[in-house]
Amino acid sequence: MTIRRFCCSFCFLASVALNLFFVISPYYLSDWKKQKLSNWAEEAAAEAEAVALISCSGHGRAYLDGVVVDGKPVCECNTCYTGPDCSLLNPDCAADVNSGDPLFLEPFWMQHAASSAVVVAGWHRMSYTFSDHSYISQELENHIRRVHAVARNAITKGKHLIFGGGSTQLLAAAVYALSINLSSPAEVVAAVPAYPVYKTQTDFFQNTHFEYDGDALLLKNSSDTTANVIEFVTSPNNPDGNLREAVVPQGASVTAIYDHAYYWPHFTAIPAAADEDVMIFTISKLTGHAGSRIGWAFVKDEGVYQKMQSYIEEAELGISREAQLRALKLMKTILHADGREIFEYAHKKMSDRWRKLSDIVSLSRRFSIQEVPSLFCNFFEKVRGPSPAYAWFKCERNEDKNCTAVLRAANIIGRPGSRFSVEDRYVRLSLLKSDDDFNLLLLRLDKLVNQDDDANTI
Amino acid sequence: MTIRRFCCSFCFLASVALNLFFVISPYYLSDWKKQKLSNWAEEAAAEAEAVALISCSGHGRAYLDGVVVDGKPVCECNTCYTGPDCSLLNPDCAADVNSGDPLFLEPFWMQHAASSAVVVAGWHRMSYTFSDHSYISQELENHIRRVHAVARNAITKGKHLIFGGGSTQLLAAAVYALSINLSSPAEVVAAVPAYPVYKTQTDFFQNTHFEYDGDALLLKNSSDTTANVIEFVTSPNNPDGNLREAVVPQGASVTAIYDHAYYWPHFTAIPAAADEDVMIFTISKLTGHAGSRIGWAFVKDEGVYQKMQSYIEEAELGISREAQLRALKLMKTILHADGREIFEYAHKKMSDRWRKLSDIVSLSRRFSIQEVPSLFCNFFEKVRGPSPAYAWFKCERNEDKNCTAVLRAANIIGRPGSRFSVEDRYVRLSLLKSDDDFNLLLLRLDKLVNQDDDANTI
Repeated sequence: MTIRRFCCSFCFLASVALNLFFVISPYYLSDWKKQKLSNWAEEAAAEAEAVALISCSGHGRAYLDGVVVDGKPVCECNTCYTGPDCSLLNPDCAADVNSGDPLFLEPFWMQHAASSAVVVAGWHRMSYTFSDHSYISQELENHIRRVHAVARNAITKGKHLIFGGGSTQLLAAAVYALSINLSSPAEVVAAVPAYPVYKTQTDFFQNTHFEYDGDALLLKNSSDTTANVIEFVTSPNNPDGNLREAVVPQGASVTAIYDHAYYWPHFTAIPAAADEDVMIFTISKLTGHAGSRIGWAFVKDEGVYQKMQSYIEEAELGISREAQLRALKLMKTILHADGREIFEYAHKKMSDRWRKLSDIVSLSRRFSIQEVPSLFCNFFEKVRGPSPAYAWFKCERNEDKNCTAVLRAANIIGRPGSRFSVEDRYVRLSLLKSDDDFNLLLLRLDKLVNQDDDANTI
Repeated sequence: MTIRRFCCSFCFLASVALNLFFVISPYYLSDWKKQKLSNWAEEAAAEAEAVALISCSGHGRAYLDGVVVDGKPVCECNTCYTGPDCSLLNPDCAADVNSGDPLFLEPFWMQHAASSAVVVAGWHRMSYTFSDHSYISQELENHIRRVHAVARNAITKGKHLIFGGGSTQLLAAAVYALSINLSSPAEVVAAVPAYPVYKTQTDFFQNTHFEYDGDALLLKNSSDTTANVIEFVTSPNNPDGNLREAVVPQGASVTAIYDHAYYWPHFTAIPAAADEDVMIFTISKLTGHAGSRIGWAFVKDEGVYQKMQSYIEEAELGISREAQLRALKLMKTILHADGREIFEYAHKKMSDRWRKLSDIVSLSRRFSIQEVPSLFCNFFEKVRGPSPAYAWFKCERNEDKNCTAVLRAANIIGRPGSRFSVEDRYVRLSLLKSDDDFNLLLLRLDKLVNQDDDANTI
């Protein structure tokens, strides 16, 4: 009996002791763990998570480097939303679909928060160069090539890769590289409607080796085989989404720069992998990270590649290592599993937007948008319909010569046709912006078309 | 008795149940916590910490975006060190002190790991612009102005701030802005010995509005008051560390761009806060983050500021948001407490290096380095000695016309005087690089000076 009581007491005491151990140990263990793992990055993680938890009603978000009020960053609201938590919609606010800001992909990255976050250590890549003496992360280069292989949109093998400050800087670098050794200045051309930066940049940098010469279509039947011509070919085209080929007859003194910013399954069928000598892409239209200022070019010719490299080096000694590190993390997220998710997501979103917009415009005789043919897509391995980045909106009535003004009166801000070197009867409407911007566009456009319809009925 | 036994059994069972709870609960609690705290940044933190724990023997480090072998990034070794953990010193390797790579500050950031780390969320700043429609983080701008206030090296009030891809891009932007509206091309000049980029960049971009015209000293006594002149004034000067003023007589057609990259207590006494119309700084020589490609200019005139802004916009639509976020974190770390720590750390390190180098060179009659006068420093509030970024090394013997070759034979790689538009009797030796590079320089130089001494004795 005594032995049994002793056993009982012992078991009880042991159990209580075990309880005590469980209660006390977490404190000691956590300290031990802290030292062991040298958890210097946890503070940064907690800080980022705290900012992400600031509620902005789904119509904005707070950023780690946002303006601080009362010790924490404030909400930065989407256009037309205000208030401390972005919950107030300004009812008279215009639908601003002017810029190509690719915020339509923001929800994708919020859904992939854990896999796309990256820590920049205080001592990360302080040097001017990587350890191979280049300005380029070899890992990032490899991952970009793999993303192209998944998208089946470009043949990258046998081509040099170079990074620039967005595709913007690479456009200038390519013009420089293709013109620097010419005996007479190169005429830089692009078929209209054309992305305005080709002209503004060429004019702005006022170099003795090149000058902007307008519409490439004017040289289509040119018999002058001696002039040095550099043709920008934007495919799909900005603003109208058409797949394009060079129009200036190719010859010894004619070269082409292919701007493939939008050549992703998001925006177009991919009939074949692009394989031109100079091809330019940008992270902005692939992942939606316009703010990163990362573009890349694939260049076949060693000499042209070297000259473009020199341009980037002379301009700013390569691009930010933080942007490269972050881009690598985004590429890794994209390539997770079979790498198809972002393309399927983006294509679905852009197709849905196009369908909704088309449904509204199709009710109108006063307005139209471009036709985009269905084509077989190498990525989806089937014929697929349109999902362009922009609507190329046209006012059909003779008197509506200034279509931007017609839309502006209906509280819609688009980009006038004259910016793309065509008449102002056309307006570019961006379909790339946030859900809020797009929904407001639909609302305003629906009202305009119905008003118009009423007017017609009356 | 039955009651007592019941109580005992109850207590025992309760205790066992409590133990069970302690054993099982962490699993459920952790799941609950995961959802509650949405700890999406922890994976990134763990990943960064794991890479930081890779041992590279203190002669290298592994990076998150380094080349991956067997599933983890490999060590990237300092010059002259090799092996999987960078533990092997190549005994014949040259001391490479050619570039201005500011790795001397790397240990500072490793010591401030927790406060300087930052998480970039997958959806961080995807837009082309900040919410005030600028390309600049207002928070970063505010912090940069505060750092200047602590260092007492510039009057920033009443001046516009603009960011560029390193100071490199801002040099070109400033020349552009100051020359674009002139009736005749501007002559761009800099007093020799001069930082080579002023010439190479001006020549490279071959603009119709400016051309490089060499040594500013040649215009010192010029009576031509009609020529448009843009003078680069580097103060402290690269390569020789001298504080400088413009030498071309100021007039209506003469403007100056002050390159103050090295005007920090690290490298020089600060006799007074700089207050010129165009002043350029870079994060590279303040925090050591050359890889970030962030420079900034303070510009007094609204028109010049607007033109520089247009230049950066046309070139690449502003600079990387990741780099800006990270720079903000670095500035916050610098400004912690009274904000003096980094200046004291950097000054001590550069002074020590200068003293050690001087001690060796002073033993030689064959070689010399520049004299740097002691001056009253506004930051330290006392007279302080030299701590320049570079040694401006001179071969004194008549026959040693190619001093770079003399040093190269002694296994030291410097930058020849001709790169700075003076004779090759001079060589620039960088004192900014890693401890390993600097120590190797001392070792090789000590040997050279002693050899030379032996030769003299014989």
